[in-house]
Amino acid sequence: MILGGGGMIGQRLVEHLAKEPRIGGKSISQVTLLDAFIEPEIPQSSDIIIDSQVADITNPQTCIELINKKPDVIFHLAAIVSGEAESNFEKGYSVNLDGTRNLFEAIRAQNEYCPRVIYTSTAAVYGGPYPADSEDVGDDFILQPTTSYGVQKAIGELLLNDYSRRGLLDGVGLRLPTICVRPGKPNAAASGVFSNIIREPLAGIETTLSVSKEVSMIFASPRSAVGFLIHAAQLDTNLLGDRRSMMMPGVHATIRQEIEALRRVAGERVLSFIKESAPDPFAQKMVDAWNFPAFPATRARSLGFTCESSFDELIRLHIESELDGKIPGQNI
Amino acid sequence: MILGGGGMIGQRLVEHLAKEPRIGGKSISQVTLLDAFIEPEIPQSSDIIIDSQVADITNPQTCIELINKKPDVIFHLAAIVSGEAESNFEKGYSVNLDGTRNLFEAIRAQNEYCPRVIYTSTAAVYGGPYPADSEDVGDDFILQPTTSYGVQKAIGELLLNDYSRRGLLDGVGLRLPTICVRPGKPNAAASGVFSNIIREPLAGIETTLSVSKEVSMIFASPRSAVGFLIHAAQLDTNLLGDRRSMMMPGVHATIRQEIEALRRVAGERVLSFIKESAPDPFAQKMVDAWNFPAFPATRARSLGFTCESSFDELIRLHIESELDGKIPGQNI
Repeated sequence: MILGGGGMIGQRLVEHLAKEPRIGGKSISQVTLLDAFIEPEIPQSSDIIIDSQVADITNPQTCIELINKKPDVIFHLAAIVSGEAESNFEKGYSVNLDGTRNLFEAIRAQNEYCPRVIYTSTAAVYGGPYPADSEDVGDDFILQPTTSYGVQKAIGELLLNDYSRRGLLDGVGLRLPTICVRPGKPNAAASGVFSNIIREPLAGIETTLSVSKEVSMIFASPRSAVGFLIHAAQLDTNLLGDRRSMMMPGVHATIRQEIEALRRVAGERVLSFIKESAPDPFAQKMVDAWNFPAFPATRARSLGFTCESSFDELIRLHIESELDGKIPGQNI
Repeated sequence: MILGGGGMIGQRLVEHLAKEPRIGGKSISQVTLLDAFIEPEIPQSSDIIIDSQVADITNPQTCIELINKKPDVIFHLAAIVSGEAESNFEKGYSVNLDGTRNLFEAIRAQNEYCPRVIYTSTAAVYGGPYPADSEDVGDDFILQPTTSYGVQKAIGELLLNDYSRRGLLDGVGLRLPTICVRPGKPNAAASGVFSNIIREPLAGIETTLSVSKEVSMIFASPRSAVGFLIHAAQLDTNLLGDRRSMMMPGVHATIRQEIEALRRVAGERVLSFIKESAPDPFAQKMVDAWNFPAFPATRARSLGFTCESSFDELIRLHIESELDGKIPGQNI
């Protein structure tokens, strides 16, 4: 079962499962895709049964009905993203906190049922001030988010720990880096800017940069995100103890470093599509709330989670998978 | 307003306020005591108006009615304690999470109102494994509680941060050490054992020790707890940034060290009232979930929070304030 299956990561995940319908050596017989607003798209060719339906997890009864099917593995990707959770207080808490709790409670209500639950958390559970040495922002570093989105996700992690400790579910929480280069159109995530300034110039479209170039972020590709999810689904959770969530590995870069990588990979010409404007106070405040150090992510790496090693690689992956290996305008 | 005003700390706090009705140089005109089950006792002599009423914060409407009075300072001490929150899953989440959220939401619903909210958290928001050097369990150490009580309190801290950051309330969260020597009768807190083995022998009553003597804990006196609360009420919260909660200073000791201190302070004879029994698995599991290192509590100390410096002092304080300076049986 994939909650939030209509989102970008949910869609990548189901495409992957349609092609390779196995988790941890076991065959997948069926996948159910769920999303709050529209029926998620189903991959066109697949040997397995894939259902798709609209379901709103803020309704406890909906969660009970979903869980009555007792799926073995639940990917909980459903969330109100950072920008929207900040501008709409009620909606963020309703989906990100109450929705998650409704899901966990529906699982608790079942007898003899302890599904693997993969919970997508975020690097935004961290908040400054950070120590001078980024090696000190390790797996023991305190979670003190400075956005409502981060707070809601950190609460979800705590619930995941408690329900797992009590044997009610078997949780793995992944603090995802910002997914970059995010394909498609911008969503309401304040972190969209980090993808927009790469994706749009590569497509020959002007993009406006309205936050400081010195803001730093932690990144992983859509491919790595799917890799994290699959790896989490088949991980030996006895290795996790009572701490079920961890920071995923990622590539650390400032916006300035992103633009330098874009120049190296795609040449000087594409940079002309980036227009700098006066800072947008809301967007700047959101990215300032993160401005992440380079998380070592030692625990996740030691458990076998892997990602790209440079921002250049992230750009090349995007060109390969989304642009058929070509940069429009350069190959005329 | 004191929520949980009928509890041991709530009663100590109101006794203090009745005698010294000032917070941060301002006079207190009125105190409202609230408790979920019985009307809290009102100190007999006081120059200020003290009300007492039964109020259940798990009812959102009750919270709205309470907050309609717009108290300037709210001490939120109401909680289901550790042992009960572990044995009664629903009740713990209902009071400790939903009750706290109801209170914060009632505050948010008011216009032009930003009360100081003192939230009593707990050292139980921490959970092992801890680094070898306890100096590393500082103010940046991750909160990964291993009891439901700790999880609920850590969630309350995150909400306190978010509501404070958004200017909805002005929160200060205090991670209290175990209060010791806790006067009166044992409550459902699993940490009761740490007081029982001091209080009962001093009163000439047999007590059973059913957990390992090597378990370590962090302690502060009832007097220090009241001191923390008053200090938090008058603290300059601009000094806190977005991190509103912190570990309070305390005295670190194992049960073995507690008993040694009891011998030093009260003599060999009282130790005969401690009867060792086979470990109680539930109690042992709860104390094992803590087994705290010596938290340096650097941030709280630098902000002026103070406590006792030895376990001997905690015992002497108890003898002085609860036993009129006498150890029964020794003065016959």
